[in-house]
Amino acid sequence: MSLKLYFDLLSQPSRALYILLKSSKIPFEECPIALRKGAQLTDEYKNNVSRFQKVPVVHDGDFKMTESVAILRYLAREKSLPDYWYPKDSKRQVRVDEFLEWQHNNVRATCAKYFMKKWIFPLVTGQELEPEKLAEYKQSMEDCLDSMETLWLANGNYICGDKLTAADLWAACEVEQPRVTGYDPIVGRPILGAWLDRIRTEVDPHYGEAHAILNKIAMKSQKA
Amino acid sequence: MSLKLYFDLLSQPSRALYILLKSSKIPFEECPIALRKGAQLTDEYKNNVSRFQKVPVVHDGDFKMTESVAILRYLAREKSLPDYWYPKDSKRQVRVDEFLEWQHNNVRATCAKYFMKKWIFPLVTGQELEPEKLAEYKQSMEDCLDSMETLWLANGNYICGDKLTAADLWAACEVEQPRVTGYDPIVGRPILGAWLDRIRTEVDPHYGEAHAILNKIAMKSQKA
Repeated sequence: MSLKLYFDLLSQPSRALYILLKSSKIPFEECPIALRKGAQLTDEYKNNVSRFQKVPVVHDGDFKMTESVAILRYLAREKSLPDYWYPKDSKRQVRVDEFLEWQHNNVRATCAKYFMKKWIFPLVTGQELEPEKLAEYKQSMEDCLDSMETLWLANGNYICGDKLTAADLWAACEVEQPRVTGYDPIVGRPILGAWLDRIRTEVDPHYGEAHAILNKIAMKSQKA
Repeated sequence: MSLKLYFDLLSQPSRALYILLKSSKIPFEECPIALRKGAQLTDEYKNNVSRFQKVPVVHDGDFKMTESVAILRYLAREKSLPDYWYPKDSKRQVRVDEFLEWQHNNVRATCAKYFMKKWIFPLVTGQELEPEKLAEYKQSMEDCLDSMETLWLANGNYICGDKLTAADLWAACEVEQPRVTGYDPIVGRPILGAWLDRIRTEVDPHYGEAHAILNKIAMKSQKA
C-alpha cells in the first residue's frame, strides 16, 4: 500500500481526507496521530512525517504532502478519485476551487477558532475565556454560518449546484466542529440543516465513522 | 478582449493577479474598483460583477470567477500562462498548492488583520485600537513572518525551491501589505528580505507598477 494518511479524527481536514479516501475506495494505511498528546510535535514526526508538524499529512511512497486541499488535488490527478468530488471539467472545477479557497478564512477559521476558545482553551488552562472575547468569536462564526445559509447554499442542494463535491465534504467537516462545544450550527438555519443531513446520509457509513468521537463529545456537551 | 479583471491595487490578491496577467502578457481589460469608496457594495456590482461583492473578480466572457487562487488555476488550464507560475508537473504543483493553501490562514490572515486594525480601523473610526489588542495582532503577524523566514524559505531561493512560482508572488503581495502601516517586515529577517528583493526585481516592471500606491503610502507612514 503506497498511500499513508496521518490523521486525527478531531481535526476537520483529517476527517475530510479520511472520508474521501474511504468512500472512494482508495486503499491507504491508517496512521492515527493523537494531537491531544502532542504526537505531531516530536522530532520523529518532524523528521519522518512532516516538517510542518501538523495533520493531515499524506505520504505517497516517499512523496510527502501537507494541506488537505493540495492533497485532494493530487489525489484527483494521480489516483482513482471519482470525478464528482473534484470535476475535471474546467468551469465546474472553478466552482469547487472557489469554495475551497474561500472556506480557509471563513467557515474554517471561524468555526475552528470558536472550538479552540470555547473547548480547548479551558481544557489546557483550566479557565474559561472572558465572555466578551468569546462572544466576538461566536459572532464571527455565526456570520459565517449565515453566509453558508444565504449565499453558498442559495443555488441548489449542494455548494456547487446540484451535485455533491469536495466543497461539501470539506465544509461539512468544519461545520460539525463547534458541535463539540454544545453549539448547534443548524438552529435557525434550515437550509444548512437540510444540506448537512444530505451530506451525512450520502457519505455514510464513512461520514458517521469519522464523526463518531465528535458525536460522542457533542452529546455530552449538549447535556452539560 | 474576453478577460476582465476587477481589482483594487490596495488589495493583495488583486495585485497578485494583476502582476500575473501583465507579466504573462495575457491581455485583459482593467476594471479598477475603489474599495475605499465601497464600489463593490453596490447592487450593480452584486448583480453584474460578483454576488460575493469582493475583489479580485475575473470574467472570461460571461463566466464569472472569484477567489484569486481558483482564478490562477483556471488561467493555468485555459490561457497561455507560463508553466513556471503553476507547474503542470504533478509533484511540483503540490508544492505550490501547499503554500497557496497554507497562506490563507497564516501570512494572508495575519498581515491583512494587522493592516486592517492598525491602518483601516483608525481611518474609519477616527480612533486607535487599544494597544494591547494591537500587540496581539502584531505578534501573530510576526510569528507568521518568522515561519516564512525559517520554514518556507529554508530550502532554496524561492518558496518551492529554486524556481519562482505563483506561491512567491501571492506571498510577496501579502508580505508587502503591513508596510502601509510603517511596519517593515524584513527587519531581523535577512532571508525574507533577500527573497522579497529577488521577487521585486524579477517581476518588474509590473511588480513596481502594482505596488506604486502602496509604496507611496508606506513612505509617508515611515516618516510619520
